[in-house]
Amino acid sequence: MAKTDSGNFFEDFLLGQLLRHPTPRSVTEGDAALYLALTGGRFLLESSAEAARAHGLKAAPLDDLLVFHLVFGKSVPQISLNAVANLGYADCRFLAPVYPGDTLSAESRVIGLKQTSRGDSGIVYVETLGRRQDGEPVLNFKRWVLVRKRDPENPAPETMVPELAPLVAAEDLVVPRGLHGRNWDVELSGSPHLWEDYALGERIDHSDGMTLEEAEHQMATRLYQNTAKVHFDQLLASEGRFGKRLVYGGHIISMARALSFNGLANAIRIAAINGGRHVAPTFAGDTLFAWSEVLEKWTLPGRSDLGALRLRTLAVKNRRAEGFPDKDEAGRPDPALVLDLDYTVLMPRR
Amino acid sequence: MAKTDSGNFFEDFLLGQLLRHPTPRSVTEGDAALYLALTGGRFLLESSAEAARAHGLKAAPLDDLLVFHLVFGKSVPQISLNAVANLGYADCRFLAPVYPGDTLSAESRVIGLKQTSRGDSGIVYVETLGRRQDGEPVLNFKRWVLVRKRDPENPAPETMVPELAPLVAAEDLVVPRGLHGRNWDVELSGSPHLWEDYALGERIDHSDGMTLEEAEHQMATRLYQNTAKVHFDQLLASEGRFGKRLVYGGHIISMARALSFNGLANAIRIAAINGGRHVAPTFAGDTLFAWSEVLEKWTLPGRSDLGALRLRTLAVKNRRAEGFPDKDEAGRPDPALVLDLDYTVLMPRR
Amino acid sequence: MAKTDSGNFFEDFLLGQLLRHPTPRSVTEGDAALYLALTGGRFLLESSAEAARAHGLKAAPLDDLLVFHLVFGKSVPQISLNAVANLGYADCRFLAPVYPGDTLSAESRVIGLKQTSRGDSGIVYVETLGRRQDGEPVLNFKRWVLVRKRDPENPAPETMVPELAPLVAAEDLVVPRGLHGRNWDVELSGSPHLWEDYALGERIDHSDGMTLEEAEHQMATRLYQNTAKVHFDQLLASEGRFGKRLVYGGHIISMARALSFNGLANAIRIAAINGGRHVAPTFAGDTLFAWSEVLEKWTLPGRSDLGALRLRTLAVKNRRAEGFPDKDEAGRPDPALVLDLDYTVLMPRR
Repeated sequence: MAKTDSGNFFEDFLLGQLLRHPTPRSVTEGDAALYLALTGGRFLLESSAEAARAHGLKAAPLDDLLVFHLVFGKSVPQISLNAVANLGYADCRFLAPVYPGDTLSAESRVIGLKQTSRGDSGIVYVETLGRRQDGEPVLNFKRWVLVRKRDPENPAPETMVPELAPLVAAEDLVVPRGLHGRNWDVELSGSPHLWEDYALGERIDHSDGMTLEEAEHQMATRLYQNTAKVHFDQLLASEGRFGKRLVYGGHIISMARALSFNGLANAIRIAAINGGRHVAPTFAGDTLFAWSEVLEKWTLPGRSDLGALRLRTLAVKNRRAEGFPDKDEAGRPDPALVLDLDYTVLMPRR
Repeated sequence: MAKTDSGNFFEDFLLGQLLRHPTPRSVTEGDAALYLALTGGRFLLESSAEAARAHGLKAAPLDDLLVFHLVFGKSVPQISLNAVANLGYADCRFLAPVYPGDTLSAESRVIGLKQTSRGDSGIVYVETLGRRQDGEPVLNFKRWVLVRKRDPENPAPETMVPELAPLVAAEDLVVPRGLHGRNWDVELSGSPHLWEDYALGERIDHSDGMTLEEAEHQMATRLYQNTAKVHFDQLLASEGRFGKRLVYGGHIISMARALSFNGLANAIRIAAINGGRHVAPTFAGDTLFAWSEVLEKWTLPGRSDLGALRLRTLAVKNRRAEGFPDKDEAGRPDPALVLDLDYTVLMPRR
Repeated sequence: MAKTDSGNFFEDFLLGQLLRHPTPRSVTEGDAALYLALTGGRFLLESSAEAARAHGLKAAPLDDLLVFHLVFGKSVPQISLNAVANLGYADCRFLAPVYPGDTLSAESRVIGLKQTSRGDSGIVYVETLGRRQDGEPVLNFKRWVLVRKRDPENPAPETMVPELAPLVAAEDLVVPRGLHGRNWDVELSGSPHLWEDYALGERIDHSDGMTLEEAEHQMATRLYQNTAKVHFDQLLASEGRFGKRLVYGGHIISMARALSFNGLANAIRIAAINGGRHVAPTFAGDTLFAWSEVLEKWTLPGRSDLGALRLRTLAVKNRRAEGFPDKDEAGRPDPALVLDLDYTVLMPRR
């Protein structure tokens, strides 16, 4: 029997099927340091254990996106090893902080299947859940992926397309137990701008640029234990459409989030990712810039210390973000656009 | 008196001499995270502290090869700084797991000396031992190295060539105290294939490819505190035969081991390295692939939970491992071959 | 109100002003491992927790220069984001060791201001202090930076140029509480040469070379949370004088210190930086070499176990340090010279 795992093909998935993902992963201060060195993050609660404790957490939590990438990475060998394309994310909620010493495990349930009209591939919809060692859920999200069939002649499963919420509603956002925004020190956090200071529709140019290197994105993607070959195998890449290794899209989200510190330093926690699109691929040598737009402002029930901002953060490559490059009226993206992310953050109030 | 250490030359070694290597090294979760980011390792016991504890260890151990590289690296300044070539390894046994918080020290005894017929260099055979802070041995191995003489006119020492076992016998393998393979969860470990499922002579193509970058191998080799100049000094390399910095051979072993997860996910611990050959040099930009062959299957005395597999893992560069590139009948290696490693792993039984 | 922080310009600084720098930073074993992997450090107390405890410290301390870079990095967004040039350092004293688990914060006081004759920029002198979570000072230094004006028409502040000591006097050096050099094991430390063995004026070629990569210096500089754009943004660099990203000068100091192990292995702690000059910029691809000169030898009051050496360490690029490349009689630096650092170390005595 073949010992090598070649991943699941479209016809291997069953509606309702639960896949427990190998291998659980204990996270440590080493992961946090590497993530910082790879992205340049400076958000206060992750940077300072003292500040995290002063605001009700038990220690400096791991960066929310590092948790996302670890859980996502776990799902790759069973869900998307044979993916033609990652089509989208939805309904991603961050449920509890993860601390050094925790062990993350992940599982995915198949919630939808739809064969393409050509019949050689199909869309697989999964809901992925990340848990802590005590079973506590820390993160869930839905994603859908176009997966090749092993054999186009194999019969198609019944089509089932799940309903996907366009965003995580304000009342479904989770504020981590204990976390509060009282007595927030704007000198130490890096910005005087709190929730009240952001206006609907406001646009922010995050100004700084960051050039990506092969060693950096490879180290990041391995840290996430994401095994997608396109990020690591130049021989494969040389035969492909771009001739180059692709940077893992999630790492671009991380870089955009780190760049957004300059303008959103008090966006101390990601509560949800509503949706996101990798508009174009990114390669080593590209320089990233980012800008953000405030889509919605929500108060949180019973909380005067924290509010929520729904943001859209866009990343562009090899040009600055000034002028806020975006889609045009016909919906055609600016040629420099690589990421269009819709997400919700928590921010201290005055 | 010259303050710079220029390393030992062939005529500096004495048969029976014991060299205590500077500097002891405390290992941490930071080392484990970096090793993971550099190699992409996913073996269950190293990835999950929960799983390690469930199988009788006190925590997630450091990767066996990370321990090997740290002990090996310690020996470089005194043993192989003036080496022309690393000729071989033998009789390498992994004696006890190493955990974050342990401090490793290393020492080597000269067990053989043989001047070459040209008289300008000689082979030094050493047995190297790595210990924990409490004196407990964690690793030993023999290696032999061709070392330059400071002055070809210096007299040759008496020749003494030690007997080197062709492999570590099954009865000499050490199962770490407490470690057991009972109730092994093949869903979490990443493969359904256990010891019983591997057949003598079976070949496994590990499928995935990994391209190496200068920053990656340099960071790895510095993490191992290995000071061999050929890995770091491009000015020196530019004057040399290849014009490029050489990747530390041990790092290639690590990459091959990490790639072997796909096909050998339940090879949870390396018990011995029987021998190994770096068939050709590897450079940044090369893409590695690996395949393995099952050489022997051994039960272990008194254990029904774990068995041993003696494996041969071969790494090739810039071509896939399909077709199992190997030596030809005349013993000439395939031009893509870079590593031929003979080692023994422990694997849970049914 | 603009949310992006564009940093302070010359006319924003006030004499006597105190700037508390965001964001405090908890340091961990992950930072120590990364620093080791990036620099190759091998000094005994940082490498071995056992040795650190045997010599009176509570654990393996973070490398002194890592602490320097973290405190320096904190000051960049408010002090030198709009710097034309970093002109110098003085009076830098290392006051207490920093251990994994500590949280560093930093603040700077403006101690001098001097507008240039052209009127479009000015020199800002600051004294920066790094503290531990309990308020204990761990490091202070002065630096002066040439900073652009936002508007050359803005009025100049009154000129105040502080007096800067040419060096930290022997009586002002701090030996960390508990640290002692008794029973120093020269086999484990990597060198038989102790304080008594170094002669005034002695020169040491540190021999080894180290080639820098983009991914390495970027990861290091992000680890230090230093946000200066010139190190990360190739688009900006392409428009600049060199066309390339600049390596953070402090990282060159770290590389020179790590190289100096070969010749100064027993220089176990940096007590002071008296001054330093980045003679020329360094880029990825450059290979660094270093040499040192003994400027002064000091006994320390009441201590027979430790002495101090005032050293000058010079780094050159793309040529070896043999022949001790230096300034010529007219003060013109050797074209290969990139760093000229004057600092003071503690070393065990016989």
